[in-house]
Amino acid sequence: MDCSRATSQTRSPPPCERSPRACASLPGRSVGSRRIEDLGEFDLLDLIRAHLGQRLSTTVRGPGGDAAILETETGRLALSTDAAVEGVHFDLRFMSLADAGWRAVVGALGDLSAVGAEPRAVLLSCGFRGELEVASVEELFATLDALGEEEGFDLVGGDVVASPHAVFFDVVVVGRLTLSSSVDRSGARPGDLLAVTGTLGGAMAGLASLRRAGKRPSDPSPAELDYLRPGSPLRPGIALAACPIHAMTDISDGLAEELLALARANEELAFVVDPTRLPVAEGVDAEAKESGRDPAEMALSGGEDSELLLTVLPEDYSALKRALDALHPATRLTVIGEVIGAPADAPAQQRTLARSQDGEIRPLALRGFEHFRRSGR
Amino acid sequence: MDCSRATSQTRSPPPCERSPRACASLPGRSVGSRRIEDLGEFDLLDLIRAHLGQRLSTTVRGPGGDAAILETETGRLALSTDAAVEGVHFDLRFMSLADAGWRAVVGALGDLSAVGAEPRAVLLSCGFRGELEVASVEELFATLDALGEEEGFDLVGGDVVASPHAVFFDVVVVGRLTLSSSVDRSGARPGDLLAVTGTLGGAMAGLASLRRAGKRPSDPSPAELDYLRPGSPLRPGIALAACPIHAMTDISDGLAEELLALARANEELAFVVDPTRLPVAEGVDAEAKESGRDPAEMALSGGEDSELLLTVLPEDYSALKRALDALHPATRLTVIGEVIGAPADAPAQQRTLARSQDGEIRPLALRGFEHFRRSGR
Repeated sequence: MDCSRATSQTRSPPPCERSPRACASLPGRSVGSRRIEDLGEFDLLDLIRAHLGQRLSTTVRGPGGDAAILETETGRLALSTDAAVEGVHFDLRFMSLADAGWRAVVGALGDLSAVGAEPRAVLLSCGFRGELEVASVEELFATLDALGEEEGFDLVGGDVVASPHAVFFDVVVVGRLTLSSSVDRSGARPGDLLAVTGTLGGAMAGLASLRRAGKRPSDPSPAELDYLRPGSPLRPGIALAACPIHAMTDISDGLAEELLALARANEELAFVVDPTRLPVAEGVDAEAKESGRDPAEMALSGGEDSELLLTVLPEDYSALKRALDALHPATRLTVIGEVIGAPADAPAQQRTLARSQDGEIRPLALRGFEHFRRSGR
Repeated sequence: MDCSRATSQTRSPPPCERSPRACASLPGRSVGSRRIEDLGEFDLLDLIRAHLGQRLSTTVRGPGGDAAILETETGRLALSTDAAVEGVHFDLRFMSLADAGWRAVVGALGDLSAVGAEPRAVLLSCGFRGELEVASVEELFATLDALGEEEGFDLVGGDVVASPHAVFFDVVVVGRLTLSSSVDRSGARPGDLLAVTGTLGGAMAGLASLRRAGKRPSDPSPAELDYLRPGSPLRPGIALAACPIHAMTDISDGLAEELLALARANEELAFVVDPTRLPVAEGVDAEAKESGRDPAEMALSGGEDSELLLTVLPEDYSALKRALDALHPATRLTVIGEVIGAPADAPAQQRTLARSQDGEIRPLALRGFEHFRRSGR
């Protein structure tokens, strides 16, 4: 099993002294409480650009012109966008604008990591309410620049527009595939193990705790931090994609939802999860007790964890775990189930299964996040 | 003067029988009035993908996976995003969702054309209100696919999220720079002529007329069509960028606003417009009479025309016009002023000038579209 290419890095380790994830906030350069409706558009863009560094030699032209320009090597580029809307995906009553932007960018990086692409550029379009404080916009971009330093990307462009009712972000990520073939959701095989990085349910528990508090704590708990400033799966994803795994996807829409996506992308296969094996995050048990829910169900349907789900041959699993341990010792890898054959005509819902404690296999009760459905339908 | 590279095309002419710009609407595949809140997310995405073709050999993987994948040649990529929000940038009471999406994509293509990049991919993130009709979403993507056929791009990805208060679009355009050096806003020289493609003010006149009508006419006037389905400046821009022009930018934010952007990007230069030379679009005079405005002022501050502004040496102008006539006979090019030297310390506002009828040069009265400013400030 050859994971050697996973060690190649095109950049040096970040020089930051403290992790931006651990910071309650990064200081803006503004004082007082100016609002962005007090600035002209040019002034706002100048202020944003003042916070953005450039670190990749492939960035020929960054923000400010009609278009950003990248130097590209021959090969393949991965492109993805991820949109998030205030009141739907985030709530600024108990998180900062910087938290919301961090979550949006880490979510988009998850799409790059799922195909094993090295980041080349990030663009961020923002819809801002005019009454947002200038200092919060400065904190947002200083925080994203620090994230760029840590994960190795430049913020090369984007757009800033007025959105009177709700803040929104749309994150564009551009990455380079360094491998000859890219991994994706399809490619799973019967007999594969189903494994997941990190821990599950933490972000959901953190969100519940933040909702109860109604404001952002000055010293967030680990679960709250899982929600406010999730770790990026980008570097572990690049390492895993260099190994002979069969299928991989990020699970920011929730494990149950992504199992369904795997089932849709892999016909004649069923995905069986053992709920007792799910790596439940710190703080989930306490939150489950508080809210009368089941910890495993929170881990399954959480929908906010920035982790990766993959399938791999059982005989390759130990080497995969050793490779990940060597490169990213902080990233756990846990087997949570298996892939089995299924009838060709079975719909995806019937190929997403859970093994109950008595060993029986039943359809997984899905509580996926369906964006547009009216409740009660 | 060598414009020969402008003739190189990587694709054959589009096979469409009628221009999507002229269509009142393209048929969706749905009947009845289902709303998108009646669909699950997967169903909505399946329905969208059913309308999207793939035409570029560089598109390795289109919509549906974690990330789109492009084959890239060695060289430079241009990237830009453009966001538009219902109630701020467009109004669905008198335009269709397809019109709004068309405007957003053509606006973003303008950024590619301003740097002379050949399109490689478009990604579209959409925030939809749940009560939108499924048929309107189908018409949107069928229309954008037809635009892709005409302009030579694939819609390779994006995101669809719920946005309860206002529809929004964020368009990502990716283009390949085929020239060794790309043109941008900077690079203007004293003595240059200032020229503009197409006609000005039409979109603003069309918008005013649509607002008065309060609904989308079944047979829009030329000015209304300038607003609802603006022609794309992409192909003329690619042709112009292959010629030895000095600076170029698109003017979707309005001519006056873009003159200011030119002044900011070119220190020690002033940009002088002769309002009597502005190529005023059909329908602007009538609208000016109706609303008691000045046609030249509407052409200057319109803010909705998808045209290009450039500077070029006077001795190169005739050859430039001949090259454009040969490749894109429908695209007008008009000299509207000149570039002159200015003191090093003069702010950009004082370097954006108009020549009055008595020959005197005065600061241009700017009515730029300032997204966040409260009115009266």
